[in-house]
Amino acid sequence: MFKKVLIANRGEIAVRIIRSLKEMGIKTVAIYSTVDRESLHVQLADEAVCVGGPQPSESYLNIKNILAAAVGTGAEAIHPGYGFLSENAEFAKMCTDCGLTFIGPKAITIDQMGNKEHARQTMIAHNVPVTPGSKDFITSTKEAKEIAKKVGYPVLLKAAAGGGGKGIRQVNEPSQMEDALNSAQTEAKNDFGDDRMYLEKVMRNVKHIEVQIFRDRFGNTVYFPERDCSLQRNKQKVLEESVCELITEKERKKLGQIAINAANAAEYLNTGTIEFLMDQDHNFYFMEMNTRIQVEHTVTEMVSGVDLVKAQIIVAAGGKLPFKQEDLAAKGHAIECRINAEDALNKFMPSIGNIDYLYLPVGNPGMRIDSALYQGEKISPFYDSMIAKVVAFGKTRSEAIAKMKRLLQEMIIRGITTNQEFHLAILEDPTFIKGNFTNTYLEQSFLPNWKETIKDEVVSA
Amino acid sequence: MFKKVLIANRGEIAVRIIRSLKEMGIKTVAIYSTVDRESLHVQLADEAVCVGGPQPSESYLNIKNILAAAVGTGAEAIHPGYGFLSENAEFAKMCTDCGLTFIGPKAITIDQMGNKEHARQTMIAHNVPVTPGSKDFITSTKEAKEIAKKVGYPVLLKAAAGGGGKGIRQVNEPSQMEDALNSAQTEAKNDFGDDRMYLEKVMRNVKHIEVQIFRDRFGNTVYFPERDCSLQRNKQKVLEESVCELITEKERKKLGQIAINAANAAEYLNTGTIEFLMDQDHNFYFMEMNTRIQVEHTVTEMVSGVDLVKAQIIVAAGGKLPFKQEDLAAKGHAIECRINAEDALNKFMPSIGNIDYLYLPVGNPGMRIDSALYQGEKISPFYDSMIAKVVAFGKTRSEAIAKMKRLLQEMIIRGITTNQEFHLAILEDPTFIKGNFTNTYLEQSFLPNWKETIKDEVVSA
Repeated sequence: MFKKVLIANRGEIAVRIIRSLKEMGIKTVAIYSTVDRESLHVQLADEAVCVGGPQPSESYLNIKNILAAAVGTGAEAIHPGYGFLSENAEFAKMCTDCGLTFIGPKAITIDQMGNKEHARQTMIAHNVPVTPGSKDFITSTKEAKEIAKKVGYPVLLKAAAGGGGKGIRQVNEPSQMEDALNSAQTEAKNDFGDDRMYLEKVMRNVKHIEVQIFRDRFGNTVYFPERDCSLQRNKQKVLEESVCELITEKERKKLGQIAINAANAAEYLNTGTIEFLMDQDHNFYFMEMNTRIQVEHTVTEMVSGVDLVKAQIIVAAGGKLPFKQEDLAAKGHAIECRINAEDALNKFMPSIGNIDYLYLPVGNPGMRIDSALYQGEKISPFYDSMIAKVVAFGKTRSEAIAKMKRLLQEMIIRGITTNQEFHLAILEDPTFIKGNFTNTYLEQSFLPNWKETIKDEVVSA
Repeated sequence: MFKKVLIANRGEIAVRIIRSLKEMGIKTVAIYSTVDRESLHVQLADEAVCVGGPQPSESYLNIKNILAAAVGTGAEAIHPGYGFLSENAEFAKMCTDCGLTFIGPKAITIDQMGNKEHARQTMIAHNVPVTPGSKDFITSTKEAKEIAKKVGYPVLLKAAAGGGGKGIRQVNEPSQMEDALNSAQTEAKNDFGDDRMYLEKVMRNVKHIEVQIFRDRFGNTVYFPERDCSLQRNKQKVLEESVCELITEKERKKLGQIAINAANAAEYLNTGTIEFLMDQDHNFYFMEMNTRIQVEHTVTEMVSGVDLVKAQIIVAAGGKLPFKQEDLAAKGHAIECRINAEDALNKFMPSIGNIDYLYLPVGNPGMRIDSALYQGEKISPFYDSMIAKVVAFGKTRSEAIAKMKRLLQEMIIRGITTNQEFHLAILEDPTFIKGNFTNTYLEQSFLPNWKETIKDEVVSA
């Protein structure tokens, strides 16, 4: 086992990783930017190295300084957390080149799964269902129209080498196809030097369902009960759950087997998540694979009773998976609310300031709050606005909802504005309570009405 | 189900009960003394009634005012917590007389189990092993000597009607018997008007092992995996665990069955705990029964995944037990450290003051801190010094110990002195780590040496 590990991250996930490492008797090295000098992850770690200025590019994305910090402190491995360098294949490779273990999959896997068309082709090759669309690159407008007619409009034209929203066009009817294909190809050629395109059906009325898998170097592979991450705003997840109650035990097993096949196909190492879209008929379509620990891993830990970060470290150090498939059945239902420093009534504008008073309701069974918050902390404008993850577990979904409401009602964070009330409103929403919301529900149906409700209250008060 | 429940308690247990009631959608009524006006339990409850002055006799033991508060607020039931009125049979009876449900066993059960000789006789009658000693009252010095010779010295002579340490004598050899019996009988006659005596062997090198049972009005009875509460100081439990690793699965089942027999014998209702002494040969001897929820119920909740307080409320309302015996196997190991406001280096003197700064480490899997603490709170001298219960859960005992160490290292309580360091020292102690400590270990072996260690450090610093 490692004697010392560097955590290449900040905030709640750095704190969460440091805590697991401490419990395993492993020394910890934090990195920090100049504005994070007094952050909790710095205070909790055995050692801490300043790696640059407040901008992420200067510090938490500064590969050279981070590797120098690891080598200089004698760390044997690096845990990247999520975000920042966690899905940077180049960084993973450079860790290996420096004799450091990257706690995650192999660099080549990160690279392959990061390329969306490569990931899609890998899944097709291993009988993992993907969004209906082209099986190969599109060679003509005529072919594109034929495929679009088969799968049904609207469709997306996507550049194989694409990313960042470039080289993508939505096509709603056949007459738009030719222009869309030409302009997308031109953009792709200019931006990526590669104008190969593929076509995908636009999925509507779907849930975002994801399956976490874990695989060790001995080929042992397991899946965890799925998460429903359909409640999103601005392409960010807001509230996640495990399990999805609409999915039957039979479907769960089938989906798990698909995920295991995909993980084996990619010769995956360590943990990762396969994201699917689920339509109203409970057909699943591969969307993408995340090759890191995710924000919402907490709900999986609550229902399975597993410490995923400890398992990541064990597997990265060459050990076997410390659990078996039969241990991982969901023992109840868990919900996570992402608490952001933002003003939900003012376009979700980020809120910064000093934490003047903090009360986190820590007692009773079935709860957890992962956070780097402490009273007196300064919330800076440089990083993600998520400041806490409140997690509630119950034997049933309704017990978990009731517990979450109580937790959010008790929690006090003063000095900044948070989205606590927004979450409380979601927890009271009849569609949420029923559970049959899709991935557009929050933005298209809930948010407009919620704002009206709040305005009414303010007016009548 | 009840619509409104009054909680006849304060501090962490009142907060803990209020939280479960809230999650069940039941309205809560807190009671408080004049110094507890700003306590957390008062802030969290839907309603709160001041029942008297700071002395417990004026408020938390003031039966008339508490019953008036319950009737006046329209509460349908009273949860007594632990301590205060929780084992007062008269109070339980008066609740019933006022048309209120006492959340606990029947008044007659509280009365019968509160009488130690009656409890002992009940257990003997139902084949529950008790401490070796007389099977009935002692009629002569000769008979006492015969029994003492059979069970082995030293023995205790105890008044059947005894209590508060009165009418008890330890006898170390036959020559002391006559004088001891005469003086104990005289004392018992004077104090209780009843000089009937019985005799018990003094048990040495024993563990304090207790088994929580739960029984509903339909006769469904279950037991929970045992707790090891051997680490005590001044007859107060300091650190509790579940399970006791020295006990085999076969012994666990046998002990559980004994506890179930005892619960059935007493026609017990709701939850309670049967306390045993376990000798070096793993023989179990009934000691006493606690007819209430206990401080250390948290470790049982952690290993079984059950909310015992919710179950208390369900069963008190006439419902069936919400779990079955096969659901209750221990899923790991849990430890609770009682954090007291006291100075362990100065004769454990109570510490009072204002909570100037508070950091409770709330994240990561497998932890819980039950507490009524908040930053800015005033700790008064009127009540028990226990201010928090830190609970750690792990798949194994060593994981739970490692987690507890981390939690105690991270926790910050400023403004008063606590026994955090004392607990950390216990967690590092080789005998504790081995697990083979007895109920005299902490006071007789650990404490003297620990103080020396601290002194050395202070001198050398």
